[in-house]
Amino acid sequence: MTPLRVVLVSPRNPLNIGAAARAMSNFGFLDLGLVNAYDVAFREAKSAVGAGDLLLAAREYTTVSEAVADCTLVVGTTAASHRELKHTIHRLERGASLIQEAGGGRVALLFGSEKFGLSNEDMSHCHWLMQIPSRPEHRSMNLGQAVAVCLYELIRDTQKASTAPAAKKAASTGDQEMLLERMMDALTVSGYFEGSAGGSQVRMRNLIRRLNLNAQDAKVWLGMFRQILWKLKSD
Amino acid sequence: MTPLRVVLVSPRNPLNIGAAARAMSNFGFLDLGLVNAYDVAFREAKSAVGAGDLLLAAREYTTVSEAVADCTLVVGTTAASHRELKHTIHRLERGASLIQEAGGGRVALLFGSEKFGLSNEDMSHCHWLMQIPSRPEHRSMNLGQAVAVCLYELIRDTQKASTAPAAKKAASTGDQEMLLERMMDALTVSGYFEGSAGGSQVRMRNLIRRLNLNAQDAKVWLGMFRQILWKLKSD
Repeated sequence: MTPLRVVLVSPRNPLNIGAAARAMSNFGFLDLGLVNAYDVAFREAKSAVGAGDLLLAAREYTTVSEAVADCTLVVGTTAASHRELKHTIHRLERGASLIQEAGGGRVALLFGSEKFGLSNEDMSHCHWLMQIPSRPEHRSMNLGQAVAVCLYELIRDTQKASTAPAAKKAASTGDQEMLLERMMDALTVSGYFEGSAGGSQVRMRNLIRRLNLNAQDAKVWLGMFRQILWKLKSD
Repeated sequence: MTPLRVVLVSPRNPLNIGAAARAMSNFGFLDLGLVNAYDVAFREAKSAVGAGDLLLAAREYTTVSEAVADCTLVVGTTAASHRELKHTIHRLERGASLIQEAGGGRVALLFGSEKFGLSNEDMSHCHWLMQIPSRPEHRSMNLGQAVAVCLYELIRDTQKASTAPAAKKAASTGDQEMLLERMMDALTVSGYFEGSAGGSQVRMRNLIRRLNLNAQDAKVWLGMFRQILWKLKSD
């Protein structure tokens, strides 16, 4: 995995700094840099409950230039579809794979301030921009969410399998027949079959088979019909 | 696109309700339901600046059962890798494509409370669970970020192209030769070629060619070397 530094440029809100750090920790990115962070915000974020080592180890820089000095690829993020296009813009899906393929040196991923995004000066340090897809009517994204979505795209993996509960022992045919008998009894006593044509047992057997009951659940169903039958007969 | 309702079960923090609504608006999902929301939190979220129509139109339900009554598929979300496995769990990448392929009816996507996630009772309404990949060391995810990441996965699209700045008119060979001459002059005057073997002009021409200058930038470079040359000669 390409080593990656998340760089927050001029963040103002301690909650956003904390949220960015939290998303990083969730997705396994531990290198956080802050450029020109509002002092109070950074201090508050660090003292928040659960800030964690990541935030305490975050480095502060005065300029973007310092923050990316040891990086070989600098990528700016934006939710906007840009005004004057000075940079190549890749949608997040494509940008993330370019970052993964970059290989070699460290990559810096820049996020602008909550209010203004990255400035033209900030962008001049970027090799290209990455656009987070968003509805044109509502482009402005929350900083913590923008960080979460970008990092998620970097770690997403379609190869990972799904997990299903361990298959349980299927009900035996005998169990199913026992259930069928009690069901037929209960339904007969209830008058369910009155007036209906024959073949009801076969229809019921197919109905039960399609349930794909496991042995344990078959016992539960059997118990229920036994109880119902007892009640029906005792009335 | 399958119609989808985001259902927040027992949310407690107005900021999280607002953040969830914001992510929905960003990614174009407008149907929000809240089950058993903490009243004060919901009221605060609705009165927050920029809450928007989506939050004002959000419906409140007393039970999960009511919230999903008109849905044909109910999916629970979790960051944990589950304890007692009663449900099939799909990783988000896979789960999202199952939702997209579901077709037909409305899908409900359930998010649990910030502190406890979905309860066993909540999960009993779910057809399957969707797991947001996360580091084992730090599984607990912020609610707003979890919503953002899930919805992003649902709208992500690898087919969308990148956009590059419109190609500018390339510098003509004449422009490049003019630049080469001024560079050679300036470097010669500076003593750059002293002691070096011949062929320097060819090396310099190749160097310039590899810059792939556009016409405008070639002019800027030419101007710079002219100025340097003037200064060098005037000393």
